Amino acid sequence: MIRNNVFSCFVFYAVLLVLKMYVMAVITGQVRLWKKAFANPEDALRRGGLQFHRLDPDVERCRRAHRNDMENIFPFLFLGAVYSMTGPSLALARLHFLVFLGARVLHSVAYLGALPAPTRSLAYVVAQVPCVSMALQILATVVAYA
Amino acid sequence: MIRNNVFSCFVFYAVLLVLKMYVMAVITGQVRLWKKAFANPEDALRRGGLQFHRLDPDVERCRRAHRNDMENIFPFLFLGAVYSMTGPSLALARLHFLVFLGARVLHSVAYLGALPAPTRSLAYVVAQVPCVSMALQILATVVAYA
Amino acid sequence: MIRNNVFSCFVFYAVLLVLKMYVMAVITGQVRLWKKAFANPEDALRRGGLQFHRLDPDVERCRRAHRNDMENIFPFLFLGAVYSMTGPSLALARLHFLVFLGARVLHSVAYLGALPAPTRSLAYVVAQVPCVSMALQILATVVAYA
Repeated sequence: MIRNNVFSCFVFYAVLLVLKMYVMAVITGQVRLWKKAFANPEDALRRGGLQFHRLDPDVERCRRAHRNDMENIFPFLFLGAVYSMTGPSLALARLHFLVFLGARVLHSVAYLGALPAPTRSLAYVVAQVPCVSMALQILATVVAYA
Repeated sequence: MIRNNVFSCFVFYAVLLVLKMYVMAVITGQVRLWKKAFANPEDALRRGGLQFHRLDPDVERCRRAHRNDMENIFPFLFLGAVYSMTGPSLALARLHFLVFLGARVLHSVAYLGALPAPTRSLAYVVAQVPCVSMALQILATVVAYA
Repeated sequence: MIRNNVFSCFVFYAVLLVLKMYVMAVITGQVRLWKKAFANPEDALRRGGLQFHRLDPDVERCRRAHRNDMENIFPFLFLGAVYSMTGPSLALARLHFLVFLGARVLHSVAYLGALPAPTRSLAYVVAQVPCVSMALQILATVVAYA
């Protein structure tokens, strides 16, 4: 499977997206330290006291961005892998993956940077286009086995 | 792999479930617009003012339903794919996938419609049955490689 | 694929981790019943009245642990599967999987048991090591197809 060119191309962009999500987790942790806002009393105790067991709007923003990644990047990991097995051309497949990667990176930047609306929403919609495209092409390939 | 009948059958139902999750995201967005309740100040500013940067019980209900989908449908995408490679009969495999799809659709309807308990919980439990069944059959197949 | 020894080894640990996540969901449900704290009014009504539609710190702790599992175990399901196809030695691959499993089980125990910081954070970091290692090895394998 790893010798399938389209699959290997998909894997490259998919792993970059997973690493991007890991970076989001690291950013959340750093914002928690910087704003002194911890989700757990045991963490707050270690960092100065229970008064730092509190919510913070910047931390919540990071968490929303991370959750949105889960809602969208995890399905991409599935759709992209299966789509790669349906025999698309490498150029068309790479276009799907690149658009998704670019739009999701923009989504993260727009979310964390609180860019004016509708930047973030547009990035979300653009990222959905290759996903829905892959989903429909997959359905067309396997519908006979339903 | 796409020529494996059971895998193709799995892929069909799996993609329907991914699309179901995408619909959940669209519904959440529409409820946010309808109730004027936005998670981010930049969204609220675009839709009338910072007073609409607020929580709303209907929006939170959508978000809980979506999160429950992530907790349950994402593992299914993994278990179903691997189970398909363990050589089950097509009829038995399709039964697993159909029960899961039906129960998860009912779960979403029960959640968004706030149907009386325990409708939603029952749908959750019924959907778990094929998942645990697949997990145990997979473990039995690969336990020698642990 | 299921005849690939490394993949079968990966699948074994991956399914254990999925079952661990299912256990987390069951624990959350039991804590909700025990603390009488329900996320939905329809559930509270069935269990004594709308006053039990409320937040509870122990329930929220379970939910944070479960969410952290989603953030970390779901990417592992992808990375581990692809890594298994890149031809690693079985011993080295099993080491990656075992470290991840052990650290994530410790993470759950530290979270639910509210163990003193930084036990939980250390478990999180240790679990990330095999994940980042797999991600980099995968990237090195497929970078030519980018």
